[in-house]
Amino acid sequence: MTPQRVTLITLGVADPAAAEDFYAALGWEPHPRSGGGVTVYQMNGMALALFGREALAADQGRPGAALGTGAMALAQYHGSRDAVDAAFETAVSAGATALKAPAETAWGGYLGYFADPDGHVWELAHNPFWPLAGDGALWLPDPGS
Amino acid sequence: MTPQRVTLITLGVADPAAAEDFYAALGWEPHPRSGGGVTVYQMNGMALALFGREALAADQGRPGAALGTGAMALAQYHGSRDAVDAAFETAVSAGATALKAPAETAWGGYLGYFADPDGHVWELAHNPFWPLAGDGALWLPDPGS
Repeated sequence: MTPQRVTLITLGVADPAAAEDFYAALGWEPHPRSGGGVTVYQMNGMALALFGREALAADQGRPGAALGTGAMALAQYHGSRDAVDAAFETAVSAGATALKAPAETAWGGYLGYFADPDGHVWELAHNPFWPLAGDGALWLPDPGS
Repeated sequence: MTPQRVTLITLGVADPAAAEDFYAALGWEPHPRSGGGVTVYQMNGMALALFGREALAADQGRPGAALGTGAMALAQYHGSRDAVDAAFETAVSAGATALKAPAETAWGGYLGYFADPDGHVWELAHNPFWPLAGDGALWLPDPGS
């Protein structure tokens, strides 16, 4: 029916220029196709866009709606705990709100959460049970492995 | 610094079993690694998880927080307008709230929006300027193309 596919993630933001500054401080480079009020980033086989929150509400067919955040989280996996710590420090230095400092989990992973300046929630994690492919893709392991 | 990568998207839901039923009606199959209150789907080089909203708030380090939706949208691109229409009808039949019926945009695309039963917003689109690779990946076109 509908494919198990996400092509584009759009984050509604209060001030697109300020949001672009935050992600620039994480080391992200906008794609040259950005423009017209949309900043777009090439991700792993997909894209992420920053778009004014009011414009996003209107685009969704509900102008004036107060859109909420937090119930959707984006996780970025890293190859080591040190890499998680470094990325978390970078985010907080760039103005993110620390929600949960990186720490070991009961299941043997290592993760932390931050909220970007617009409240969008990111998880930074090292998951030794779900290793990433060389290109950064995640292919869930077979049940028997 | 931090890679331009999304590994896992977690949707906080009121009732994981009911949410799984909704996505099953879209034709999605949970991965055998699902369990422990988390339903996980293999997507395009990444994964998507359904997780109880209260558990997600606690996992984010803010137990009891009322998490909001709508300011982050997930877009699924399709190869034709007919495929967008069919996917939209499937979602509404499965219990989604139609926010904006698929229609042509000023820039020559074709898109609609729906909210899943927990309020998570999906955009279904055909974007002739951003064609998908054979495996469903999106690689943004060069500026000159």
